Amino acid sequence: MEINGVEIKETYAEGFGIKVTRILVTAATAKLAKIAATEATGYATSVIGCPAEAGIDCFVPSECTPDGRPGYAIMICHASKKALDHELMERIGMCVLTAPTAAAFNLLESEDELKTAFKLKYFGDGFEKDCCIDGRKVHSIPIMSGDFIVESTFGFKAGVAGGNFFILAKDQITGVKAAQMAVAAIRNIPGTITPFPGGMVASGSKVGSNKYSFLPASTNEKMCVTLKDQVDSDIREDAEGVFEIVIDGLDEESVKKAMKAGIVAACSVDGVLEISAGNFDGKLGAYILNLHDLF
Amino acid sequence: MEINGVEIKETYAEGFGIKVTRILVTAATAKLAKIAATEATGYATSVIGCPAEAGIDCFVPSECTPDGRPGYAIMICHASKKALDHELMERIGMCVLTAPTAAAFNLLESEDELKTAFKLKYFGDGFEKDCCIDGRKVHSIPIMSGDFIVESTFGFKAGVAGGNFFILAKDQITGVKAAQMAVAAIRNIPGTITPFPGGMVASGSKVGSNKYSFLPASTNEKMCVTLKDQVDSDIREDAEGVFEIVIDGLDEESVKKAMKAGIVAACSVDGVLEISAGNFDGKLGAYILNLHDLF
Amino acid sequence: MEINGVEIKETYAEGFGIKVTRILVTAATAKLAKIAATEATGYATSVIGCPAEAGIDCFVPSECTPDGRPGYAIMICHASKKALDHELMERIGMCVLTAPTAAAFNLLESEDELKTAFKLKYFGDGFEKDCCIDGRKVHSIPIMSGDFIVESTFGFKAGVAGGNFFILAKDQITGVKAAQMAVAAIRNIPGTITPFPGGMVASGSKVGSNKYSFLPASTNEKMCVTLKDQVDSDIREDAEGVFEIVIDGLDEESVKKAMKAGIVAACSVDGVLEISAGNFDGKLGAYILNLHDLF
Amino acid sequence: MEINGVEIKETYAEGFGIKVTRILVTAATAKLAKIAATEATGYATSVIGCPAEAGIDCFVPSECTPDGRPGYAIMICHASKKALDHELMERIGMCVLTAPTAAAFNLLESEDELKTAFKLKYFGDGFEKDCCIDGRKVHSIPIMSGDFIVESTFGFKAGVAGGNFFILAKDQITGVKAAQMAVAAIRNIPGTITPFPGGMVASGSKVGSNKYSFLPASTNEKMCVTLKDQVDSDIREDAEGVFEIVIDGLDEESVKKAMKAGIVAACSVDGVLEISAGNFDGKLGAYILNLHDLF
Repeated sequence: MEINGVEIKETYAEGFGIKVTRILVTAATAKLAKIAATEATGYATSVIGCPAEAGIDCFVPSECTPDGRPGYAIMICHASKKALDHELMERIGMCVLTAPTAAAFNLLESEDELKTAFKLKYFGDGFEKDCCIDGRKVHSIPIMSGDFIVESTFGFKAGVAGGNFFILAKDQITGVKAAQMAVAAIRNIPGTITPFPGGMVASGSKVGSNKYSFLPASTNEKMCVTLKDQVDSDIREDAEGVFEIVIDGLDEESVKKAMKAGIVAACSVDGVLEISAGNFDGKLGAYILNLHDLF
Repeated sequence: MEINGVEIKETYAEGFGIKVTRILVTAATAKLAKIAATEATGYATSVIGCPAEAGIDCFVPSECTPDGRPGYAIMICHASKKALDHELMERIGMCVLTAPTAAAFNLLESEDELKTAFKLKYFGDGFEKDCCIDGRKVHSIPIMSGDFIVESTFGFKAGVAGGNFFILAKDQITGVKAAQMAVAAIRNIPGTITPFPGGMVASGSKVGSNKYSFLPASTNEKMCVTLKDQVDSDIREDAEGVFEIVIDGLDEESVKKAMKAGIVAACSVDGVLEISAGNFDGKLGAYILNLHDLF
Repeated sequence: MEINGVEIKETYAEGFGIKVTRILVTAATAKLAKIAATEATGYATSVIGCPAEAGIDCFVPSECTPDGRPGYAIMICHASKKALDHELMERIGMCVLTAPTAAAFNLLESEDELKTAFKLKYFGDGFEKDCCIDGRKVHSIPIMSGDFIVESTFGFKAGVAGGNFFILAKDQITGVKAAQMAVAAIRNIPGTITPFPGGMVASGSKVGSNKYSFLPASTNEKMCVTLKDQVDSDIREDAEGVFEIVIDGLDEESVKKAMKAGIVAACSVDGVLEISAGNFDGKLGAYILNLHDLF
Repeated sequence: MEINGVEIKETYAEGFGIKVTRILVTAATAKLAKIAATEATGYATSVIGCPAEAGIDCFVPSECTPDGRPGYAIMICHASKKALDHELMERIGMCVLTAPTAAAFNLLESEDELKTAFKLKYFGDGFEKDCCIDGRKVHSIPIMSGDFIVESTFGFKAGVAGGNFFILAKDQITGVKAAQMAVAAIRNIPGTITPFPGGMVASGSKVGSNKYSFLPASTNEKMCVTLKDQVDSDIREDAEGVFEIVIDGLDEESVKKAMKAGIVAACSVDGVLEISAGNFDGKLGAYILNLHDLF
């Protein structure tokens, strides 16, 4: 199968279950909202080593927010409910409450809820108030620069992590450009994030290690462009730039839409040679996402 | 004392000891370097609830970097060496190694060192190499998109956290503008960061709580603009916008320079009424930073 | 006189009369509004060689705009009413009407008006309509992507051009940083623009030329850092970085406020040595703006 | 023909001859270079009403520039050599020479040259010098903040203007997103620009007017989404968002590559319905660019 002359391999991405939240961070201006959203979703590329997986989903214009101010939808994800609870508490409490003019609302209706703000409100030391904005139960917590508004609870649900595809390009700079196009396209799909820096992954891992028994994960040498001559490589001869796009989403459908949009966008870049995907022979993850089935 | 008609209160900021690192993140372009630096320093406003305090210090042009590529100096700080060691391992390993075209070098010569890359290099699963770039010992770790270059060790030293000043302005938007000016000025002082979102703090805390005994910290009601009529407020009658700038730095001198530059810049904004500072009566912190002594 | 240790010379800037307009460009998002505003105010540093002097004044949040969308106030200026009329016609017709989701409103109440949209509306080829938005008479012109809304007339008035000050710094990079601080501060003063690239001027001119009689203007060799040893220089020995900030404003008061804010902000930068100003011995311009009188 | 489910109409864009230049603007940092490049290419969407057509082509990393500093390639275009000569003189003289730390080099080898800097150098008033940088003949003109380096001549050649395609989407916001994706993709094709604001056109014109005989051009009512019910519309029933991408390029090949990349990228956006193109029945332009032939 080909898109714009680029080969789409007959393979699949293997996704995993993860618990996801979706939170709206608003502020007096879009720029201030982005500042809070960026701080709250930093240090969150992968739960392998970061305390969460998180990212900015999309811009939400003022006419679509409860407080009539511009905002950004962010997603914070973790496999463990307890860890997720902690992350929301600290990422909202330390990175949104402290941010100039920011507020936080729930964007995910769900029976499962985290009572983040139920605890956070005590920061008001008795001056906090329960209010209602746009039909939502919120807490108003007096802080130095005004009152911090935060929705009482945040829904969470079983989502999908690890949606992915590889971009194999003729050189590194072409690979970066194609990955940037893919990330820009995925930003248009609500309910998905690309948690790695700039939305792309420069490194690939395998489970365990061939040489160091103490390592839980190590570089996937078969996917390293500089090791093509030293190992039984999975990279075609003419590809010198390889990047992975990793996607977390609210559900399988969102992740598939994001993979589709990202792949088409990457294929718009001259010099992209092949789109592939990463899996563990279907043994580890609950979701099998066939590239060819996306189209 | 006055600057441009703004009253500088006769008071002081109280700073604390913290262990600081200073790391250079370079990449193929300044924009890609900033992406890696931003991810690596996210979720790091205060160690009260975040795993570290971190931020971007300044841009470093390509003619001043070991690999001749543009970069950003970042600082990652923690009171505990062990925690700092963990943070460098994960923030570099998960947020810089994974970022497109990024590399990491040490910017802090010190006898005390963290052997971050000595562990990180094993990710190469035997394909890693020791090299030398610009007189520095680095490790070259093959990853998907090329080789990740990381300096072998990162220096750390006793620095200063909690340098601060308050901006009292006639309204919230004026306060934000003044805080933005202050943060822009502090960006010009190497060796300092303003770790909060956008560099400013919208909330102020006091130790403990008057109402909830289980709380280690709660809102500082005396500094809340919306509680001026309900409590014995520390905010003058005509001030409706209050923001704090918090500064971490390599040493007392850097923090003082940053406070000075930030205060002067804040005073350029029409509608700023007063500059004050936060302290604990000198009982908790090791550093007494008098506002009047800065000038 | 000194601010933060920087000498403020006892001299003055000499300003000129110019006709100014102030236009609000709104769009679906702040980012889209900025795109239109930037295109409409480009190629407009000085009427010496550009068809106009223009720039972005400030951001206008959605709650302060006639159509409830975020926007930017821009200013377009020219000494000649006829030239100004032409510039508004083309800059709005070619750069705002063509921009995605953009609209244009008048921000300057004045008896003197340009009937820009009265002509522009004929572009609708009979499908244009007269409407009223927020009490303003506007034209609704059908274009490909929707209807372009433009206020019927734009006010203009006698304003002030050529407000200025020089920043003398120890080196070029310090000068750039100080100029950036000054420009950021001036952005907070409504009714003023800094029309040069990035808001600062890297070159200074004198009237006429010593060597080439055919030149109306040439480099001001007395203010060139690289000619200090060859001419009777006006630059102190220790200054190697010199930049000028040029300000156009709605009136003398706005320009003075902008000069004041810019000077204080520039003085926050360590390494700035002196603030001076440019004039023609008071012979050419109508406005004498003494630096010391600003404070 | 379909790409990702989007219909590509069997039609063609009609391009025109235009004279093009390609200029490299470098500066101390990529950000400063972009400031100069943006000012120099503003107010330049179409020669119908602007003094030129111009835009930023692409970023040029420091290792590929004559002075080892980062830069941006820009293109300035006009049908008339005389007008082009004037535009280069003023856009370089007023917007690059005046910009902090900027320099300008020729990026287009051609027998046809504009002697822009041959005239510009006289601004140095006798202090200018002829130098050689990286094998290029340049002039060094002393200005306030240092020396302005500008290449002696700038090549120009017969290029192609008016390459284009239409994006028909289900609603306006989807149309904007698709246009943004297209513009991002075209940025990857060296030698092309999208001169309209944000790279896209919100308005479409027809030659002349049905109602007003004095108009040279008026809205193309058949392509207006809000006139679908009033005229014999060319827009399908389900399309409510329509944007055009207009491309100028060094030659037909570049424009075709840009159209191709832009169309594929636009088709990655869910909700895009159809790609079409604008022409004048082949009667006016010299270039017939068939959409189907691109693939």
